[in-house]
Amino acid sequence: MPDKAVLLLSGGLDSATCGAIAKNRGFALYAMSFRYGQRHAVEVDAARRAAGFLGAIEHRIVDIDLRSFGHSALTTDAPVPKGRDPSVASGIPATYVPARNTIFLSYAVGWAEVLDCRDIFIGVNAVDYSGYPDCRPEYIDAFERMANLATRAGVEGKKLTLHAPLIGMTKAEIIRAGSALGLDYGTTHSCYDPDGEGRACGACDSCVIRRRGFLEAGVPDPTKYAEGRQ
Amino acid sequence: MPDKAVLLLSGGLDSATCGAIAKNRGFALYAMSFRYGQRHAVEVDAARRAAGFLGAIEHRIVDIDLRSFGHSALTTDAPVPKGRDPSVASGIPATYVPARNTIFLSYAVGWAEVLDCRDIFIGVNAVDYSGYPDCRPEYIDAFERMANLATRAGVEGKKLTLHAPLIGMTKAEIIRAGSALGLDYGTTHSCYDPDGEGRACGACDSCVIRRRGFLEAGVPDPTKYAEGRQ
Repeated sequence: MPDKAVLLLSGGLDSATCGAIAKNRGFALYAMSFRYGQRHAVEVDAARRAAGFLGAIEHRIVDIDLRSFGHSALTTDAPVPKGRDPSVASGIPATYVPARNTIFLSYAVGWAEVLDCRDIFIGVNAVDYSGYPDCRPEYIDAFERMANLATRAGVEGKKLTLHAPLIGMTKAEIIRAGSALGLDYGTTHSCYDPDGEGRACGACDSCVIRRRGFLEAGVPDPTKYAEGRQ
Repeated sequence: MPDKAVLLLSGGLDSATCGAIAKNRGFALYAMSFRYGQRHAVEVDAARRAAGFLGAIEHRIVDIDLRSFGHSALTTDAPVPKGRDPSVASGIPATYVPARNTIFLSYAVGWAEVLDCRDIFIGVNAVDYSGYPDCRPEYIDAFERMANLATRAGVEGKKLTLHAPLIGMTKAEIIRAGSALGLDYGTTHSCYDPDGEGRACGACDSCVIRRRGFLEAGVPDPTKYAEGRQ
């Protein structure tokens, strides 16, 4: 029997690639996604497609109410920044959601414990990370250490490992790795502000980073853009 | 203006005492409670009373679906252990909820960040802790370290402090401290298995520890027990 792994799956390019890497390492995947007051359900639909593509044993979609905290362009009606170059934009962007990865990972730890599973995969990335503090290697290390002190498994000496295989990769490297593993990026979604048909805006930070990644990777970009963009 | 603090408030004896200590230290309290598929809503009612008694500026009750994880006597229909002496029971009890404090604290970190608040209080206790791994000092320290790496405030050098003032106290010391601060323990609730009118069973680990605490503290026990118990 293959070892189980909990995979945090957003429906975006990074988490789908992370899942393809985990699958390639031989893990049986238990995918977990969150509905957290996003403006659009496109992400959850993309997560469902990715879970199917990755052959996940189970896919849990957890409802959490991050909107009650307000404070982020992704969970309020504040405008999403557009048309800028994210690689030179400084500071933490308006799309930052307070404690988001910490909350997601906490649920993953709970599910891993119930599944008697010792591996969690998260597709965070510190290179093209748009300035989010909870995407850095030192954060991942600190979370893993805390989780091993928090759980029954940890107390019993069964170490929990938090895998972040993309953390040192550029977007182009991520896209090349996923393509080599046969991942269809047409099923993934990255845009912060898609149109009514789920097509990408092409101008938000996430779109800009994604487009540049395909270009640099030399891989055709399968993304559907709104109104003839690209 | 007093400094703000987020207080995790369960409605039990410990978290109410923790709140009284935080209030006594001059903090303006923002109380946070969780509905997480408990068998009874008695806890949330007790949390509301405690928040009122403590003069909390705001009290948020967050719905989270820990029941979807199963695996604990507090969130499934498995029987709550009764009539044993918790101080000699070994191992982690059946009432352990996977990653519970980690999930609760993660929400507290998110709310603290939105409130621009740098202090979180949690009433965990390592002495009469019933064997929960996420009530130990090394867990609290590791969570605080992780939270400071996770957040915008941490990146900007505003340190978040996770206070666990009860962690080294016996139940009797906790009860004496709360009584000295004027806390009415009749408003708190500890029982894992109350009757239909919210009266304590007197026999679960939580009841046994609580009763012994009042006895040792020399403080009259205001708890209402079912069917003429006590």
